[in-house]
Amino acid sequence: MDAISDTPDLLPRLKAALDAPSQGIDALAAFLADVRPQTLLDLWYELEPGERERVLAALPSEAAAELLSNLSAEEQPEILQALSLPQVADVLEELSPDDLADTLQALENFDPEHSREVREVLDPGTLAVADALSGYDEEEAGGLMTPEFVAVRSSMTAAKVLAFLRRAGPDAETIYYLYVADAQGRLTGVLSLRQLIVSPPERRVHEMMNPDVVYVRTDTDQEDVARIMADYDFTVLPVVDEEDRMVGIVTVDDVLDVVTEEATEDIRRLGAAPIDIDYVRATPWLLFRKRASWLILLVVSMTLTFNVINYYEDIIAEVVILAAFIPLLIGTGGNVGAQVATLVVRALATRELELKDYLSVFWKELRTGILLGLAFGLFMTGYVLFFRAEPRIAVALGITMVLIALCANLVGASLPFLFRKLGIDPALTSSPGITTVMDVVGLLIYFRVVIWVLGPMLTGG
Amino acid sequence: MDAISDTPDLLPRLKAALDAPSQGIDALAAFLADVRPQTLLDLWYELEPGERERVLAALPSEAAAELLSNLSAEEQPEILQALSLPQVADVLEELSPDDLADTLQALENFDPEHSREVREVLDPGTLAVADALSGYDEEEAGGLMTPEFVAVRSSMTAAKVLAFLRRAGPDAETIYYLYVADAQGRLTGVLSLRQLIVSPPERRVHEMMNPDVVYVRTDTDQEDVARIMADYDFTVLPVVDEEDRMVGIVTVDDVLDVVTEEATEDIRRLGAAPIDIDYVRATPWLLFRKRASWLILLVVSMTLTFNVINYYEDIIAEVVILAAFIPLLIGTGGNVGAQVATLVVRALATRELELKDYLSVFWKELRTGILLGLAFGLFMTGYVLFFRAEPRIAVALGITMVLIALCANLVGASLPFLFRKLGIDPALTSSPGITTVMDVVGLLIYFRVVIWVLGPMLTGG
Repeated sequence: MDAISDTPDLLPRLKAALDAPSQGIDALAAFLADVRPQTLLDLWYELEPGERERVLAALPSEAAAELLSNLSAEEQPEILQALSLPQVADVLEELSPDDLADTLQALENFDPEHSREVREVLDPGTLAVADALSGYDEEEAGGLMTPEFVAVRSSMTAAKVLAFLRRAGPDAETIYYLYVADAQGRLTGVLSLRQLIVSPPERRVHEMMNPDVVYVRTDTDQEDVARIMADYDFTVLPVVDEEDRMVGIVTVDDVLDVVTEEATEDIRRLGAAPIDIDYVRATPWLLFRKRASWLILLVVSMTLTFNVINYYEDIIAEVVILAAFIPLLIGTGGNVGAQVATLVVRALATRELELKDYLSVFWKELRTGILLGLAFGLFMTGYVLFFRAEPRIAVALGITMVLIALCANLVGASLPFLFRKLGIDPALTSSPGITTVMDVVGLLIYFRVVIWVLGPMLTGG
Repeated sequence: MDAISDTPDLLPRLKAALDAPSQGIDALAAFLADVRPQTLLDLWYELEPGERERVLAALPSEAAAELLSNLSAEEQPEILQALSLPQVADVLEELSPDDLADTLQALENFDPEHSREVREVLDPGTLAVADALSGYDEEEAGGLMTPEFVAVRSSMTAAKVLAFLRRAGPDAETIYYLYVADAQGRLTGVLSLRQLIVSPPERRVHEMMNPDVVYVRTDTDQEDVARIMADYDFTVLPVVDEEDRMVGIVTVDDVLDVVTEEATEDIRRLGAAPIDIDYVRATPWLLFRKRASWLILLVVSMTLTFNVINYYEDIIAEVVILAAFIPLLIGTGGNVGAQVATLVVRALATRELELKDYLSVFWKELRTGILLGLAFGLFMTGYVLFFRAEPRIAVALGITMVLIALCANLVGASLPFLFRKLGIDPALTSSPGITTVMDVVGLLIYFRVVIWVLGPMLTGG
């Protein structure tokens, strides 16, 4: 079955199964047994809240757990409240420990009372494992990992490991990489199932394993985890604690989600958009509050432009046409700066650039900025000459454009490095942020150049 | 060994091995044998070009191939030219077919003469497989896949499959998922090595396999491939041709790279930055040409702002202070528009929003825009009253701000949908693009409101 074109007719069929009055839950269960988890998730968002609860209740607990683990932390508590406590327990027991830890946290935040009731009906062992995981920072390896890995001893034979896998395999997150631990639980090697399969049955683990394991620590940042997995083309990465004891594995499917999340975070920061928001579910009032906090900062900063122009009011009063060029000049500065900042921020995020590359970037953007400045300066001079035969004004605008473009290029290339140096995410420089800075700087450049070039023409000059 | 903190002292040791005069290539080979591929890649970028060639030549061909496959299409041809043809052949034969296809393409683009020489020394069979792959679009599943998968027949027993894997395994990209093909090569099922391991040896493939395989076609877009793998938590995805015959597999490590590339593309488009550029290697002249093409479009569009202000020159001449508010008003419009466009573009990219959601987004942003407009309008009125006691001007500016914020919010939320509808990437709306549109629209709103509110005060009104 093709993965992307199999949903269209399923929604009416699901709705029909939900509406079937006499057959009730059985028609629904029969329908759901035929639907793939991902397809079900697509259908899920087309259902009314009441219908969702009936679908979840009609699913076998394993399928319900898979569906639940794909819902957001905002959706999970609501939907669980609609189920009975034994139903909730059945579903939660099927979650992997890392997903269970996240769901319990979501329940706790949403309704501490319901959370306590749920915890009481869960198996204490399951609960203990999940609670151990929830002690880790969500954005670090400890928060991404699952403790369900397979550990073997170095003295075991290939045959013994295979026999062990047949018993222990079903509960592990992956059996394709087996980790070798010593008596203290310290990670000493890794063995792929592939290597195991192609080895003679009597071969011992220490003869087959790779002792040079790449690992991360529980406090390794998730961005570094993602980068290591991408660079090494790994599908699993072991996690050790501060005593080098193996405590879990991170799998690549979690890392794919991290990469998408981090890209969303960077994109939103670059657009000065609030980062911790579920756009589709947010109300206008929430959007207003989150967005206004950034915008107000920018509006207040931009009042500086009023002060600059107000200060040079006499010049505008004398040569009114000068006001007409303001948006073109400062807008171009903002665009040049935002463009180069975008390139630099992304190169810093993907580690193509590091702090130490600043001088070479500065030198590169000095030259690029001069080229851009000359091009736009010539255009500007030509444009002014074409519309109004005032050569001095044309010259002043050409010089202003050169300086603004050059300055914007250097500011846009430098601010991300400065932010990184200060330990702030470079993406927070943001296109609107650079635009605002360049509005103020551009006006100061403009009026200084105008006074310098047109000075003799101006009464006050 | 810790993956992220093991490089610092290796560079001096590598440089020493490169400089060791008497031992020559042996000291280097001994050093390189101890270094992990990814660590070597980190060191690689710290070396001079001449040193790089010596390192590549000193590596065993398998390690050299792994290093090569991690270099960009710009770097590969240059470094290969420094090796002898037999050396090049040894290294290229070790590449996986999909990587070989990409490298041959890079060679062909860089130096067709050298490419012909290289093709002559390669094994014809290897070449044929690579050439078959290079017929596919790079941004589709066919361009991402490798043909090195393991196919089994449904009548084989578990024991027979295991025996087959011991022979065929070493050449396959993965042996963790085995694909079941019928006599015509059509994909009929998938069997995980995990399932195989836990099954009795006499069990047949058709009894163990999952007949409900999720697959993509050779022409499925890479973004859809990435989404399917992320949604289903797959590490491998089979690819079929138009006759449903299985032709390859896409592995998750390639998809991780796709997700990163697509994010870079979106981020750059949002910043109106050229997308097809290797920033670190680009010269200022190249950067200038690529960037200027976007900026010139924006500068020319922005000359409209000059025309608008020029048209209303008499009003500015009469009430000069009105000019001082221009950057603040249009800048806020640009920031509001860029912010909402960022949220909408990303939600469209991650499929949280679809075209059909436009009306609900419009309604949401109408309300959010009114809230933002009222907040900034009040701020603006207060600000003007505080600095100059001209109530009419304060009222005009307050009304202008309300209208600009509302309009910017609706334009920023709508343009991405319009672009998607027209089949253009919504990210091309871009922060600088929205800013430019709002500069022009903002000025038109400003002067209409000023004429309406201050009309009686103005000579021409």
